[in-house]
Parts: sequence; structure tokens; C-alpha cells
Amino acid sequence: MFKLQELAELVGGQVKGNADLQVSGFCSLDNPSPTSISYLEKNKDAAKLSDIMLGALVTTDQLAQYFPDVIIVANPKLAFVSIMERFLSLTKPEPVVGYVHERAVIDPSAEIAETAIVEANVVIGADVVIGEHSRVGANSVLGKGVVIGQHSILYAGVLIYGCCEIGNHVIIHSGTVIGADGFGFVPTKEGHRKFPQVGSVLIEDHVEIGANCCIDRASLDQTVIHSGTKLDNMVQIAHGVRLGSNTVIAAQTGISGSTRVGNWCVIGGQAGFQGHITIGDQSIIAAQSGVFSDLPFKSKVSGYPAKPHAQSLKVLALTFKLPELVEKIKSLEIELDLISGELKGLAKRERRRRQAGEQTPLITPEA
Amino acid sequence: MFKLQELAELVGGQVKGNADLQVSGFCSLDNPSPTSISYLEKNKDAAKLSDIMLGALVTTDQLAQYFPDVIIVANPKLAFVSIMERFLSLTKPEPVVGYVHERAVIDPSAEIAETAIVEANVVIGADVVIGEHSRVGANSVLGKGVVIGQHSILYAGVLIYGCCEIGNHVIIHSGTVIGADGFGFVPTKEGHRKFPQVGSVLIEDHVEIGANCCIDRASLDQTVIHSGTKLDNMVQIAHGVRLGSNTVIAAQTGISGSTRVGNWCVIGGQAGFQGHITIGDQSIIAAQSGVFSDLPFKSKVSGYPAKPHAQSLKVLALTFKLPELVEKIKSLEIELDLISGELKGLAKRERRRRQAGEQTPLITPEA
Amino acid sequence: MFKLQELAELVGGQVKGNADLQVSGFCSLDNPSPTSISYLEKNKDAAKLSDIMLGALVTTDQLAQYFPDVIIVANPKLAFVSIMERFLSLTKPEPVVGYVHERAVIDPSAEIAETAIVEANVVIGADVVIGEHSRVGANSVLGKGVVIGQHSILYAGVLIYGCCEIGNHVIIHSGTVIGADGFGFVPTKEGHRKFPQVGSVLIEDHVEIGANCCIDRASLDQTVIHSGTKLDNMVQIAHGVRLGSNTVIAAQTGISGSTRVGNWCVIGGQAGFQGHITIGDQSIIAAQSGVFSDLPFKSKVSGYPAKPHAQSLKVLALTFKLPELVEKIKSLEIELDLISGELKGLAKRERRRRQAGEQTPLITPEA
Repeated sequence: MFKLQELAELVGGQVKGNADLQVSGFCSLDNPSPTSISYLEKNKDAAKLSDIMLGALVTTDQLAQYFPDVIIVANPKLAFVSIMERFLSLTKPEPVVGYVHERAVIDPSAEIAETAIVEANVVIGADVVIGEHSRVGANSVLGKGVVIGQHSILYAGVLIYGCCEIGNHVIIHSGTVIGADGFGFVPTKEGHRKFPQVGSVLIEDHVEIGANCCIDRASLDQTVIHSGTKLDNMVQIAHGVRLGSNTVIAAQTGISGSTRVGNWCVIGGQAGFQGHITIGDQSIIAAQSGVFSDLPFKSKVSGYPAKPHAQSLKVLALTFKLPELVEKIKSLEIELDLISGELKGLAKRERRRRQAGEQTPLITPEA
Repeated sequence: MFKLQELAELVGGQVKGNADLQVSGFCSLDNPSPTSISYLEKNKDAAKLSDIMLGALVTTDQLAQYFPDVIIVANPKLAFVSIMERFLSLTKPEPVVGYVHERAVIDPSAEIAETAIVEANVVIGADVVIGEHSRVGANSVLGKGVVIGQHSILYAGVLIYGCCEIGNHVIIHSGTVIGADGFGFVPTKEGHRKFPQVGSVLIEDHVEIGANCCIDRASLDQTVIHSGTKLDNMVQIAHGVRLGSNTVIAAQTGISGSTRVGNWCVIGGQAGFQGHITIGDQSIIAAQSGVFSDLPFKSKVSGYPAKPHAQSLKVLALTFKLPELVEKIKSLEIELDLISGELKGLAKRERRRRQAGEQTPLITPEA
Repeated sequence: MFKLQELAELVGGQVKGNADLQVSGFCSLDNPSPTSISYLEKNKDAAKLSDIMLGALVTTDQLAQYFPDVIIVANPKLAFVSIMERFLSLTKPEPVVGYVHERAVIDPSAEIAETAIVEANVVIGADVVIGEHSRVGANSVLGKGVVIGQHSILYAGVLIYGCCEIGNHVIIHSGTVIGADGFGFVPTKEGHRKFPQVGSVLIEDHVEIGANCCIDRASLDQTVIHSGTKLDNMVQIAHGVRLGSNTVIAAQTGISGSTRVGNWCVIGGQAGFQGHITIGDQSIIAAQSGVFSDLPFKSKVSGYPAKPHAQSLKVLALTFKLPELVEKIKSLEIELDLISGELKGLAKRERRRRQAGEQTPLITPEA
């Protein structure tokens, strides 16, 4: 339980209304509670919301007028995160002392930090290193030589092949596979010969990877995800890809081999990237795009094949006007036929006049 | 072994042919057997099929003429399901008494019904509840506080995060992850700050979820899949999504955060849905659609962006006629040039006639 | 350590430069090492590469001129694979004697070859057979009656449902699910009734399947992947699909129920195939295609819906010219208006001349 004023101070905001209001928790606007705090960023529903029995609200200066008890901040969502974390810290269980579950299967050569947690049925290969305060969820498997940094969390059922390296403060969700062989074959008459995939994977600090993703090991060097990048579920990162820092990639997107994606890119879901291309920093790639060529710094693209977003939108809009265009072309054809007919009539009459002996000595023959 | 007459009675159908025919099992039309029963719904191949050595057939009144021994019903596929189930019940093993495998790792606070089955290497957290006749497949992991209803089946390797709730008669296939964090971050200059995902997931009764799916937990409330809905493999359901009842979603489709899908919808594979939109009941969304806005009741859409199916088909057809349209436009340009030339000739000759002293007092100057 | 000449003999190539050069390993061109060997196929960067301190290179006759010490072959990538394998064989650990980890859970009826390896926490059901030299990775689950041939590798966390059959020299990567129920339901007023999925899956020899794939069991018969076919990660193969031999399928592609794909096809990533269609041998299907109908032998298609690649490219190009086409149509309309106006002027003047008593007895009335 916090006073509204205390929460305002926590986030550097300003109270409008009852600064002594007791706030017992946080909630969404879909399930409001009169003793909880929520947040509002966009004014779309502000008027409507003011009718329902809200508790406190973190919101912007502009929207504050509609509600009785608010904390005014520039970035309500960000402030709300801090408030959530404050409440969540209250209910956090005692910090667990590190342990290795008796049902984990650990190679004797593995080095597991004292504060690390290894849950039941985890299988840890030779020479694995797990840093302080990291946690490996139940039924995960870490191959030979895997290194996990500090404060990283692997949820249940994460599968990491040998020699991959995971940084600090990394989160990897369940079912994700890191370090499987890249898809490399050389066709021969007898069949496809496997190109050995002997590289590895490096996941830098503060990366979060969703559930059921695949990050393949490189053929020869390293597949790299640089620090602070976040992947949603079922994202496919092929061998030799390099993702920059602080890039976010939504679910079910796939990036083909050796492609390089810059820093601070935002990539929508179900997008696909050809191999061996380079995407500039701060690019925005819309959901379901098909990216087949390099993109410069700060590109904003969409569509198949991906083109500058404004162009794609224009082309799409015109595509949906094709029935109209076809009608216009038909009208033009009809009109042209009429005109052509009329013109022929005129020309014919003129010809007849001439033939009828008119004074036409100056006139050149018709084309 | 059943007589054809017995099977007809089971499905409320009518025998045409030998009612005493002994049927020993069921088969597909691709691998027919003279002592088995199969089903046929569509007449496409009826004539052809009548040549191969079939056993009995469940089919419609209309198609019955082509075959000697048939059960006539209105819905052959549905009747065939009942017949399959009848045969399968013959070979069912003794009902297994509930058990917890000695290699399962069960928190002492978990409540597991006596008739439930917990297979080897399952890891079950604190306060988990598993209802009567439910089964948890080998190597599955149920986080703290997970509740599984009665008669539900989790196949091997299902991974469920804490506090998710699964109803009765639910089937979840291998590799599916339920309750991983939704993809929520607030960008800051220093990087993306994680928006805590503290909601949960509710899967209602009679839902079936394919293999390697992801159903994320809500940020604050609940991600919900209502009763009777069926998901194919690798379907992505983001945080806060609500799927109605009896909706079917084919493989590799993704639904973004907070989107609501109605009841009795049919959604093809590899479709994508933007977040925060609402899809009306009984809507049909074609495979590979990109749905970016609300859809009313009984919509039928396809394409990118998804539009009414008839419109999409028309636009697509016209798109493929673009080469033709371009030719038409070229022809129009050429014809127009000709006409323009001809007209200029006429006008010129007229002008000359006038200049040559014709009687043209009434004529206004040309534009 | 090999002399360049020795490696050249291994691959049937010809040395240009120092045949006695000592080569200690292999590397990529991105991370060159003066004592290692790499390969180069395309001349794009040859001139540039000649400046960096390379060791030896396997390349073509044409590109050999740019580098001091090379092995000349027709197919550099294929030769490089042989060289890699030669080096890798040097560092291979002693061939491991077969074993079953004490923490594996094996049904007593299972038959496991003496040279096979079963890692920790693997769960093996009744009547499973595992052939000589095969390996089942940690935390994998093999259902009742699964058969694994010889020399096959299942990486950690592979989940195989009952009665599926895996051939020899097969590789299956982590998280892949084989034999889950196909997506088959019969809609009824009360909800979707499950069509029992009682078929199985057959994976033939030399198939490789990526991570987190799904290969569903057939409803009644068998889902089959013929020999030598290679699937990338997250590929969805629905019930009753039959994939030919030596076909390669890139990541995130989905093939719907009962579709048949020929031999030696090449299928890009994120493509989708409708059910019940047939794709001819040696067809090439571009990434993100939507294939909705049969394709003949040696098809080369792309787009949505997939059409012959040349046609798709042309149509796409014209789509992006729509803004231009619209301008052209507008110009045509304007020009036509002008001409029409001019024509009306001419006709009007002609009419007036006639009305003014000209000699026009031969002229028919205007249309």
C-alpha cells in the first residue's frame, strides 16, 4: 500500500487530486479497481473512461483533466512500469539461495556459481559455466562448453547446443533452441551433402528471446545477437546472422543466413529477410514484409517485396482501385471509338465535298 | 468385426447392398481394403473409385449408386468418425489406473487426482492441481500454481508457466509453451525496458492446441481461449488475446496482442492479425491474410491487407491482367495520337479553306 | 596440419602456388587466417579479397589468378566440405561406446542397439527400437513403438509420438515434434468433433529436419518424408503430406494436409501450400509464395497466389508502376477531352456551314 504522493515521487511525477489516496496495487483499464492504479497514454477513450470507477491513474498533462486522482508524467507507460516493479518487489519471495536440484544431471567439469539455480531434470554437459544469480529452468539442456553469464534466466525446456555463449541479464523463454545447425547443404548428383556447421552463437547482455525461437549456429564463425535486442516468439535467426543492439523483432519473423540487421530497428511479425543483406540502423520493417535487398539507415518499409512504406501504401491503394482503372480504360476506349467514328464521318464528308468539286487546291491528301 | 447393418445403426444410416457384410476395420480410400470401411463425401472420384476393390463405404444418397455395399448418411465424414471410434474402442487397452511416475518431480503441495497420470520426468511446481483422468506427458513442466482440469491430455514436453489454468477435456500437443511473457517493452534512451507480464492464461474446456504453439500470458489480465476452439501447430497467440468459442486456426498463424477473435471463426494458415482489433463471429479469414483492422460479423476476407474475399479475388485477377492493361493503355495512346494527328489535319485544312476566302462568317475561332 | 598438395589430392584439385604450404585449419573469408584454408565461389569480391592476408584458398580456375596459394577445382564449396571433414576428423573424440544414461527411463520391452547412445532423461516407451550407432539426445521422448534406424541423431528435446518410424542416417534437431495429431475436425452444431488421427509418420534415410519443426501423423495412412530431403527450422508438415526425395525446404514454410511434393524441389522460407495439391519434381518455389494449385514438373513460381516466376516478376514490376499508369490514364482523359472539344467545334462549324446553305447534298446526318 502506497500513498499516491509516494508513487508520484517514485516516478518523478506530479499529483493532481488526492495525494494521500491509498493505492493497494495496479490494474489494467479493462479490469479497473477503485483501490488500484492504472495508466493511460492515448486520449481515444479518455472521456468514456472517466465514467467508470477508476482508482488512480498515471497519465499525461493533457489527459489529467478527465480524472480525479492522477500522477502526471511525460511517459505514462514507462512510469507505470516503475510503479508495477515497486509493487511487485513487495510480494517478491525471499531471495532464493542458489541450488542445483538433485534431479539435475551435471557433468563434473561444469562450473556453476553458488548463487545460480539449476532446476530439476536439467542436463548440463562438460565444461559448462553458469554465472552468479542465473537460473536454468526445469528440463533445459546445455550442451558441452555452453557459457551462461550472470543474472540470466533460462525458462523451462530451453535447449542450447554446445559452445554457445549467453551473456548477462539475458532472458530466454521455454522451447527456444539455440545453436542448432544452420541450413547448409551442397547439392550433388547423389543428394545434398551437409556443409558442417562448426561455428557458434553469441547472445549478448540484456537480450530477451521469446518462446520456441530458433537461433542457429554459424557455419564457420558466429551468429550474434547484440546487447539489448528483444525477440518475440517463434523467431527464426539463421546461421551467421548478426542482429544489432536494441532491435525488436515481433513473432514468427525469419532472417536468412548471414544477413546483418542494424541497431534500434523495429521489425514486425511474420516478416522475412533474404540472406546476405544488410539492414541499416533504426529501420522500421512492417509486419509480413518480404525484404530482399539492403536497406539504408532509417528505412521504413513494408510489403512484398518491401519498398518504402509510403510507396507501398500508394501502390496498394492503387491496386485496390484497379477495378476503377479498368472501367476508366473501358470508357476511354468507348469514347475513343465514338470520336474515331465521328472523325471518320467528318473526314468522309470533307472528302466528298472535295470530290464534289469544291475549291480545295491547297489541301494535302489525308494520311 | 461388425456387420454393415450394425455400423449403419450406430450412425443412423441406411444400408444399400449386403447388410450382413462383415467389416473388420476402417481404411482410407488411398489404401482400400476389401474387408474395411471407408468414407466418400465428394463425387469427384466416385466413378473411378468404383473400379478399385473397396470394402464398404459410408457415403451420401447421391453417391451410393456407384458402390455395392454402402451406408447412406447425410454427413459421411461425421458418421465415419463414429465408426472409427467404435473400432478404436475395441482395441483400447485396459483403462490405466492413475499413477505418478517415480521419476516425476512433484512439489509436495501439488494436488494430483488419483485417476490422473503423470509420466516420467515431469516437473510439477508448488500448488499445482491436476484433475481426475488427466494425463501429463513425459518431460512436461508445470509451473507454480498451474491448474489442469479433468480428462485433459498434455502430450510429452508441454511447458506451462506459473498460474495458467487449463480446463477439462483439453488436448495440448508436444512442445507447446503456455504462459511465457508477452512481448512488451517501453523504449528508453538506454534500451528497451521490460513491461512486467504479470497476467495469466486461461484455456477453457474442449480446446485443442497443436504442437509447438505459443500462448503468451497477458501483461495484466488474462489471455483467454474459450471453449471448443482448436489451434493447429505453431500458432502464436500474443498477450491479452481473446479467442472465442469453436474457432479453428490453421498452422503458423499469429495473432497480436489484445486482439479479440469471435466465435465460430475459421482462420487459415500463416495469417497474421494486428493487435488491438476485433474480429466478428463466424468470420472466415483465408490463409496468408494480413488482417489490420476490425472485421464485422460473418466477414469473409483474404489478402494483404485483408479485404472482402470477392474484392480481393477481383483485385488479384486484375493485377494479373496488368500486362494486358498496359498494352491497352499503349494502344489508346497510339490511337489517340493518330486521331489527334488526323484532327489536326482536318482543322488545318478547314483553316486554310477559311483563309482562302470561303464563306465562314459564322465560325468562331478555334480553341 | 596438411600440406596444400595433400588437400588438393583429397579433393581432386590442382595446386597453384606453394604446394608445400602448411595448412593448419579452415576458416571463413570474414575471419581469415594466414595458416588456414577458405573457399571462394563468386568473383564479386575477389579483387578486394586479394588484399587481405589470406592463407590458402579453394577456388575456381577463373578466380585463381587473384591469390597466391590456391587449390583449383570445379566446385569449391563441395571441395571445401571435404577439406573441413578431413580437419574435423582429426579432432574427433574417440568413438564413444554405446550407452544408456542411468537417468534415461526405458521401457523394458525397448530394444536398444549396443552401439546406440541414449542420453540423460530420455523417456523411451514400450516396443521402441533404436538401431546401431544412433543417438537420442537428452530429454527426448520416444512414444510406444517408435523405430529409429542406424546412424541417426536425435538432438536434445526431440519429441516423437507413438509408432513413428525414422530411417538411417537421419538428423533431427532439438524441439522438433514428430507424429502429433493432424488438424482434423468435423464441425457439428455442438462444436468441432475430432477426426481420430490414427495414421503415422515415416522419415526415410538421410533426411535432416531442423529445430522446432512439426511433422504431423496422418489421419489414416502415413505422412512420409522420402530419403535425402532436408527441412530447415520451424517447418510445418501436415497430416498425410508426402515429400519426395532430395527436396529442400527453408524455414517457416508450411505444407497443408495430403499435399504431395516431388523430388529435388527447392522451397524457400515462409512459403505456404494448400492441402491436396501436387507439386512436380524439380520445382522451385520462392520464399513467401502461396501455392494454391498443382504445379507441373520443373515449375518455377513465386508470389501470392504463386504464378510462374517470370509472370510474377512482371506483374509485380507493373504493380509498382501503377502510379505512372494512373497518370497516363489521366493524361489520356485530358487529351481525349481536348480532342473531343476540338472535334465538337469542327463538327459544329461544319453543321453551320451546311445550314448556311452550302452544297452538301451527299452528306449523311451525323451519328
